[in-house]
Amino acid sequence: MSEMIGFIGLGQLGLPMATNLLAAGYPLRVYNRTASKAESLLARGAHLANQPADVVTSGRIVATIVWDDAALESVVMSDGFLERLGPGGIHLSLSTVLPETAKKLAAIHAQHGCVYIEAPIFGVPEAAVAHQLWIPCAGPREAKERVQPLLQAMGGQGIFDFGEEVGAATLVKLIGNFLISSAGYSMREALLMAEKNGVDPKAVIDMLTSTLFNAPIYRSYGKRIAEKATLFGQSKIPLKDVGLFKKTAQQVASPTPISSLLYDLLSSAE
Amino acid sequence: MSEMIGFIGLGQLGLPMATNLLAAGYPLRVYNRTASKAESLLARGAHLANQPADVVTSGRIVATIVWDDAALESVVMSDGFLERLGPGGIHLSLSTVLPETAKKLAAIHAQHGCVYIEAPIFGVPEAAVAHQLWIPCAGPREAKERVQPLLQAMGGQGIFDFGEEVGAATLVKLIGNFLISSAGYSMREALLMAEKNGVDPKAVIDMLTSTLFNAPIYRSYGKRIAEKATLFGQSKIPLKDVGLFKKTAQQVASPTPISSLLYDLLSSAE
Repeated sequence: MSEMIGFIGLGQLGLPMATNLLAAGYPLRVYNRTASKAESLLARGAHLANQPADVVTSGRIVATIVWDDAALESVVMSDGFLERLGPGGIHLSLSTVLPETAKKLAAIHAQHGCVYIEAPIFGVPEAAVAHQLWIPCAGPREAKERVQPLLQAMGGQGIFDFGEEVGAATLVKLIGNFLISSAGYSMREALLMAEKNGVDPKAVIDMLTSTLFNAPIYRSYGKRIAEKATLFGQSKIPLKDVGLFKKTAQQVASPTPISSLLYDLLSSAE
Repeated sequence: MSEMIGFIGLGQLGLPMATNLLAAGYPLRVYNRTASKAESLLARGAHLANQPADVVTSGRIVATIVWDDAALESVVMSDGFLERLGPGGIHLSLSTVLPETAKKLAAIHAQHGCVYIEAPIFGVPEAAVAHQLWIPCAGPREAKERVQPLLQAMGGQGIFDFGEEVGAATLVKLIGNFLISSAGYSMREALLMAEKNGVDPKAVIDMLTSTLFNAPIYRSYGKRIAEKATLFGQSKIPLKDVGLFKKTAQQVASPTPISSLLYDLLSSAE
């Protein structure tokens, strides 16, 4: 039988990923701030905990996927979490946070004899259901090997190794989300201009996404724009992550002309 | 034997495209402001003319690919060009100009009983040599059918029909070049930020261009950036074309936050 896994965070991505783990035969202890989100998992045999530390099995793996840096830190610093995880324990962190937060948390885990490993998730909820997530990953080699089957079972179709130093995979995630926002806003500016000039946006995006821009991101967002759907819906993720990108760039004095503009555009979006 | 074709403009793209036409068996009369650029074509049997009108055969096709709106207008308005082209004649315009310039020239051609058709070219010189050009095209249906084999012989691997009204294909070309500049500058901002944070840009771009951004534009410019090459070399095309995009958007009061920023960045580039 597979080992017991702790899973914290049953949001848009967390819930389908936890569902995938159960389907793959992993027994789960789950925690979520809003307990009702766990109902479908409990019906499939998962155990619900009342606090984060209660999902942790000493020396085993606990996965977390929460909204932001503050939420992640509050889980890690919650009563008993690190103490219970202990030597040999792995915290598999799937959230998108600042690389500096990841590094700080890795150091705190090390002080408790356990390992923090990062594997932030690229993919929409539908991609989790379809096992089509892309996952950059960084942390100590041995821990990466232990979590590899788990990442695949959660829905990863490709896992990319960014070395042993935590922070690198998180940085790649911020870069990806910045490039997605940039591509989305650029397409929107272009297709609005086409439409106002009497040219069908759908014909434009059909040509470009079957030639130079034949990539999943351009196809999916191009289609949304041509169909007059909002670019990112009600999601606050693009604003949050472009903000994290910008901050991470500015900390090393790297120029941010486009990310700063996107941050302003996203801030003023409805 | 194939019909005699007139060809004006032997620049970075024009020369390999004219070379392809000769190789496909089309006899060519060529003109270029700098006559020495025609040498390799003359060695293969092309005829060199002293002025634009001298490449024109009445009722046949003349192709032009020149630097900008002013150069295109000066060819069209040069002594005898329109008069000689005459009824049944087609001007196949391959340059990237303003849609309004294309519309104005189409009207002037109509006054002379000939047809202006637009087919601006997506592709670097190497793509012309490899017959891998993408070509949006607009103009009267019958004229489009006549130039179709010529566009393929020039190096088109795909030709996309944007209707009978001239201006639409030119607008698509401006949109494509705007999206290329946006993608290029966004990648550069992102990869510089990666490098300054100690993460290998090549590993980042390798992951992204094999997943979410698996498109020719991201692969080619990503590679250039990761290898420390300049984004667009010495080319003035991105600045010119983002300028045309911005102007075309502003004429219809379409917002230009990203194109305006890119124009400023391109203007201040070395």
